[in-house]
Amino acid sequence: MYKRLIAGGLALVLSSGCFFTLTQAEEGMWLPDTVNTLPLAKMRAKGFTLKPEDIYNPNGPSLKDAIVIIDGGTGEFISPEGLLLTNHHVAFDGIASLSTPEKDYVAHGFVAKNRSEELPTPGYTVQVLDIMKDVTAEVLAGVTPEMTAEEREEKIAENRKKIIDAQTQPNRQAQVVEMNSGLQFYLYVYDVFPDVRMVYAPPKDIGYYGGDPDNFEWPRHCGDFTFFRVYANKDNRPAAYAKDNVPYRPKKYLTISLAGYKEGDFTMVMGYPGRTNRYREAAAVETSERVQIPLLIDFFTGQIAALEEAAKTDRKTALALASQIFGLSNSLKAYQGAQRTLRRVQFLERRRKEEAALAQFIAGTPENQSKYGDVIPKLTKLNEEQRPFVPTDFLLPRIPGFVSQVAGVASLAVARALDAEKPASERNPQLEAQVSRAKAAIPNLFRDRNASLEQQRLVALFELADKQPAGYRVAFLDRQFEGKTGEARAAAQRELARHIIESPYYSTPGRLQVLFELSAAQLRALDDPGINFLLALAPENDAARKRTERFNTEVTPLRARYIAALAASRGNQSFYPDANRTLRFTYGEVKGYTPKDGATYRYYTTLFGVVEKDRGVEPFAAPQAVIDLYRRKDHGRYFEPRFGDVPVNFLSTNDIIGGNSGSPILNGRGEIIGVVFDGNFEGLGNDFLYDYDSQRTISVDIRYVLFLTEKMAGADYLFKEMTFAPASGAATRR
Amino acid sequence: MYKRLIAGGLALVLSSGCFFTLTQAEEGMWLPDTVNTLPLAKMRAKGFTLKPEDIYNPNGPSLKDAIVIIDGGTGEFISPEGLLLTNHHVAFDGIASLSTPEKDYVAHGFVAKNRSEELPTPGYTVQVLDIMKDVTAEVLAGVTPEMTAEEREEKIAENRKKIIDAQTQPNRQAQVVEMNSGLQFYLYVYDVFPDVRMVYAPPKDIGYYGGDPDNFEWPRHCGDFTFFRVYANKDNRPAAYAKDNVPYRPKKYLTISLAGYKEGDFTMVMGYPGRTNRYREAAAVETSERVQIPLLIDFFTGQIAALEEAAKTDRKTALALASQIFGLSNSLKAYQGAQRTLRRVQFLERRRKEEAALAQFIAGTPENQSKYGDVIPKLTKLNEEQRPFVPTDFLLPRIPGFVSQVAGVASLAVARALDAEKPASERNPQLEAQVSRAKAAIPNLFRDRNASLEQQRLVALFELADKQPAGYRVAFLDRQFEGKTGEARAAAQRELARHIIESPYYSTPGRLQVLFELSAAQLRALDDPGINFLLALAPENDAARKRTERFNTEVTPLRARYIAALAASRGNQSFYPDANRTLRFTYGEVKGYTPKDGATYRYYTTLFGVVEKDRGVEPFAAPQAVIDLYRRKDHGRYFEPRFGDVPVNFLSTNDIIGGNSGSPILNGRGEIIGVVFDGNFEGLGNDFLYDYDSQRTISVDIRYVLFLTEKMAGADYLFKEMTFAPASGAATRR
Repeated sequence: MYKRLIAGGLALVLSSGCFFTLTQAEEGMWLPDTVNTLPLAKMRAKGFTLKPEDIYNPNGPSLKDAIVIIDGGTGEFISPEGLLLTNHHVAFDGIASLSTPEKDYVAHGFVAKNRSEELPTPGYTVQVLDIMKDVTAEVLAGVTPEMTAEEREEKIAENRKKIIDAQTQPNRQAQVVEMNSGLQFYLYVYDVFPDVRMVYAPPKDIGYYGGDPDNFEWPRHCGDFTFFRVYANKDNRPAAYAKDNVPYRPKKYLTISLAGYKEGDFTMVMGYPGRTNRYREAAAVETSERVQIPLLIDFFTGQIAALEEAAKTDRKTALALASQIFGLSNSLKAYQGAQRTLRRVQFLERRRKEEAALAQFIAGTPENQSKYGDVIPKLTKLNEEQRPFVPTDFLLPRIPGFVSQVAGVASLAVARALDAEKPASERNPQLEAQVSRAKAAIPNLFRDRNASLEQQRLVALFELADKQPAGYRVAFLDRQFEGKTGEARAAAQRELARHIIESPYYSTPGRLQVLFELSAAQLRALDDPGINFLLALAPENDAARKRTERFNTEVTPLRARYIAALAASRGNQSFYPDANRTLRFTYGEVKGYTPKDGATYRYYTTLFGVVEKDRGVEPFAAPQAVIDLYRRKDHGRYFEPRFGDVPVNFLSTNDIIGGNSGSPILNGRGEIIGVVFDGNFEGLGNDFLYDYDSQRTISVDIRYVLFLTEKMAGADYLFKEMTFAPASGAATRR
Repeated sequence: MYKRLIAGGLALVLSSGCFFTLTQAEEGMWLPDTVNTLPLAKMRAKGFTLKPEDIYNPNGPSLKDAIVIIDGGTGEFISPEGLLLTNHHVAFDGIASLSTPEKDYVAHGFVAKNRSEELPTPGYTVQVLDIMKDVTAEVLAGVTPEMTAEEREEKIAENRKKIIDAQTQPNRQAQVVEMNSGLQFYLYVYDVFPDVRMVYAPPKDIGYYGGDPDNFEWPRHCGDFTFFRVYANKDNRPAAYAKDNVPYRPKKYLTISLAGYKEGDFTMVMGYPGRTNRYREAAAVETSERVQIPLLIDFFTGQIAALEEAAKTDRKTALALASQIFGLSNSLKAYQGAQRTLRRVQFLERRRKEEAALAQFIAGTPENQSKYGDVIPKLTKLNEEQRPFVPTDFLLPRIPGFVSQVAGVASLAVARALDAEKPASERNPQLEAQVSRAKAAIPNLFRDRNASLEQQRLVALFELADKQPAGYRVAFLDRQFEGKTGEARAAAQRELARHIIESPYYSTPGRLQVLFELSAAQLRALDDPGINFLLALAPENDAARKRTERFNTEVTPLRARYIAALAASRGNQSFYPDANRTLRFTYGEVKGYTPKDGATYRYYTTLFGVVEKDRGVEPFAAPQAVIDLYRRKDHGRYFEPRFGDVPVNFLSTNDIIGGNSGSPILNGRGEIIGVVFDGNFEGLGNDFLYDYDSQRTISVDIRYVLFLTEKMAGADYLFKEMTFAPASGAATRR
């Protein structure tokens, strides 16, 4: 699922992908201030009835004011009293942190019977967008074409800092965000509300029904929603939790529609999608498809195998590792899906053809040639130079920190000692902050440490390095293992992993602390195989980091010009910038799909399917209350005559990605009909491209949300503060 | 898949299941001589154009003469020159045994370019049905109601032997088969042809495309077919392979239709289904659903886990264990599917209601009461007495022989020594034959033996025994482990397993041979923990065997009367006997299905899907030749305009089960339109019941068979001996 903005806690290295044939009907994560450039007539024909300023209006309330950032996802106000709807999986960490063995809200759900029972949720904030503004001119002030890439970068950073500093206030967050690799810059300023209280969270057997096996899958039967309420001080401003805080009064909240939808109906989604890379040069796509994705698939596979092996030891270890295994499996599935999609649509071939056409456009006039003539050749060359180092630059920074916190902290101590030997100007400025965070963490690192698992996982990294073909080898490790192959190399890998993980010089919290006191010379003098490895590794890691930084610095302005050329080739018609965790608008329609030859997926699922999937054991253990409601046919006003049942989840063609979790899905009148919570497996690879035939947004029907709120939780008192759209037509029952 | 008649080499203990609400439209594996009792008018309306005697005619050629037994499956003649079609998976052992590293027919397929290249296939015979006859009167001659169950059994055995002896001839096989637990008996006499030659087998990447993951699944894309030719002597009689044998001239062969089908079209299947249990008493269903199936699922799960763990050791071990793991996984999936289906349709509850109605019918008249009044109570009591022993009677006979051939042979030596101490009349008459087979096998048993795996598997059996709830305990093992629990019992189990598997007294072929020379007293005197266990086990095994035999002896005549009562309650209308590997006729229609809420499966798949599934690695590595044919749109006459492609596999509602593999699927005119090769996952549990909504037969389209034969293998010279139905209507292209 689109569990977190960044899957598995990893900053994923996928930095490629593109899709710039003319935008398909429903492709695009549009900036809300560009809705006026969309094909409104076509949208109206499908059922869109709003004006662009209903969606985005800098001078008065509009839909954008109802949509907020919450944790790694999106949320929306659905009452004038700060009631907020998002996903159960977005709320999950909060639910878990509020739970105790006696009050297990994960297992049993949580219901506040009235406002006084609403629970402050530690660590959760809600960001309400206040200002959104194109600041390209300010950011590029003083930037000249003559500057080197480094000079340009420095100037831009200076301008950005100035703009942000001007906005700094308590409980406000300001960001200057790059659009299209720096073709444009936008300022975003948010009010950050720290008093966020839990109102109703269903049990995990509803909110995460289907669990891991159903993750990314359709047909789905998940009640993936949770209600929060945002609290403010008396002046309706953000404030830390206080008993006499009052419900926040949002500028705008959403009206609820019980009228449902049918196939082909217009839908729109607003939310905060994380990251896409849809305008990448062919050479970068080649790096991703040929090198990065296979590497990542092997990486996750190896790490999961090591963890699963360890999980067999006993029930306690299994429980401790479950969420880590799930996180990595989720990422693995995401990359496998992406690989499948790229292969299916022959993406690289397509991208190469498109780039050839762009090259022809550039060569077409002397003006274009002089403006853009160098862009494609330079990008190609940069990617080709970087490509052989992808395995090295991915793996080295993860050795050993990704598999062992203890050894990771030790490697930081070693890196700092080496850094201290350099002239001040060459030192790594981030190191000191990292060191103090790491030292503070030391006391907790040894609790429940599983050193033998750490060794297995480190061996898996060594094995992955050894699996790389000629031209992509991790030279540093090949040197470490002195050209050994087969069983000799395997034995050497196990031996080295043991030394790194079990070095006596950082085997206790005290010894690990002491490590930070030693100079590089003293560390060398220890002549410990683990520390010797870390000493050798540190400069390699520096080199890897610098290689990546240099690539980014050089590639970014070229990509901005690449996109400018692309825009010119399309007559400068509007197109959407890559997702970057800013507010976006996407429209589409309700629609099923054909996942594969011989099978068809319908656009909706029903309560029958919840009961049908029930096996009595997690993750398919439907609560008895829900089974009883189904058997009693106690549907209330949530029955959909066209489905003959209560609707549960549904599909639409909206173009979304991780970060959109919890977004409202709206009908053509801007009323909420459901809550977005996932994308389908066949649509993975959507960071690279949008595919109308196979990519679907999965939402939980608002009627299932309210059905459970009323019939299972008895929390229908909440309905009083909501606004329901008047019933229209035969499809609605109130 | 319906790989073998008996899955995983186990004689499965499932002896229950039933379904006797009035037969649904298309339920039934009918004896071919009862086709005249079927609803012919309704069948005609669907497209059936034949007369019953076209299907079965004792006085002249009919369809039944074209359908044969081959290995564990079914085959059919499709030319006047003995050309036979069956499944690739039925032919697989033959293909494998003919293969060498140089000529790998499994990987590359086999094509005879002409008759002289056709390859004799060791171990394969074809059985052609000659006589099929109701012999109930002869079998029951001399049986009286006053006889005890044992006396009745003995008399019947005597009569059966007489009938069979009268038929005995070389290359003939005669069987007297019980229908409906002995309500009727049929004589079957087959000509057995030992000269069976391989003509065309596609590569595994066609014939087993999709492999394990696609097993039992739809949508499917498998070219699961192989051509053989049956050879006879000059007189058209069976004969051992000889160079001057000639192609057999069957009484009847099938005409081929290229006209295809559409949803709702009439279909029929003839073949040799293995075993069903559709008329079992509720108490037996309870035993199966509550005790046997969960036990078997745990059993397969534990054995697979042990094998998979061992398979991780190295590539060689993994390869050696692959087919064993697949066999057990196949069985596991089959029982999981059955469990799912029984749960979904609430089968036990349904069966209880049906039996209550039957009881009411019996109580309705004094005549019925006197004829059948004791049947249900007695059956219930017998089942209730047997039920607590199910885990014991399943597990003890599998310890240790199921997990260790060496220890199994040792346990046979011990059992024989103990048997010799008994009076001659009490000895086990089968033992001597078993002993001589076992002694002959000894030299091979130690090659590639994996004793540590055997121990793990034995421990898994001990664990399974220990998992049984009170009332179902394996008392013998509880005594062995002296009431130990938790880690103490686990340690004792490991210890005992080691003693049993690694006893020094049968650790080499020579020592194992010597074991057969020792008397019971000598064996006791060794005082070896392994042998002591086997000494204690043997009488327990005897008791388990006798308990099972006694149950069967008593239950069988009661079941016959139960079915008689059932027939009476339906006004003695015709109904089909349980499958028992005799020739059956089933009719139905082409039809897709709804596997679950939100998904629909179409009734056919296409060549596009073969390419879509291709991943370039087994089991989804489509041969390049097939991908090229798809890309070139080189469809020949096999293009189906309604599908826009070459058809590959299709679904129908025919009621089939394991043993039907390779059966022809015929249109209403009796022309072959495909070859049956599997059932769908949602239809598992079909040994217990037929479910029209979810149970489907999966066939390979004859057009895909011929497409590959012509376009991929270039073996279209075979078409000359086939008969094609004349094109009829627009749907056919020739």
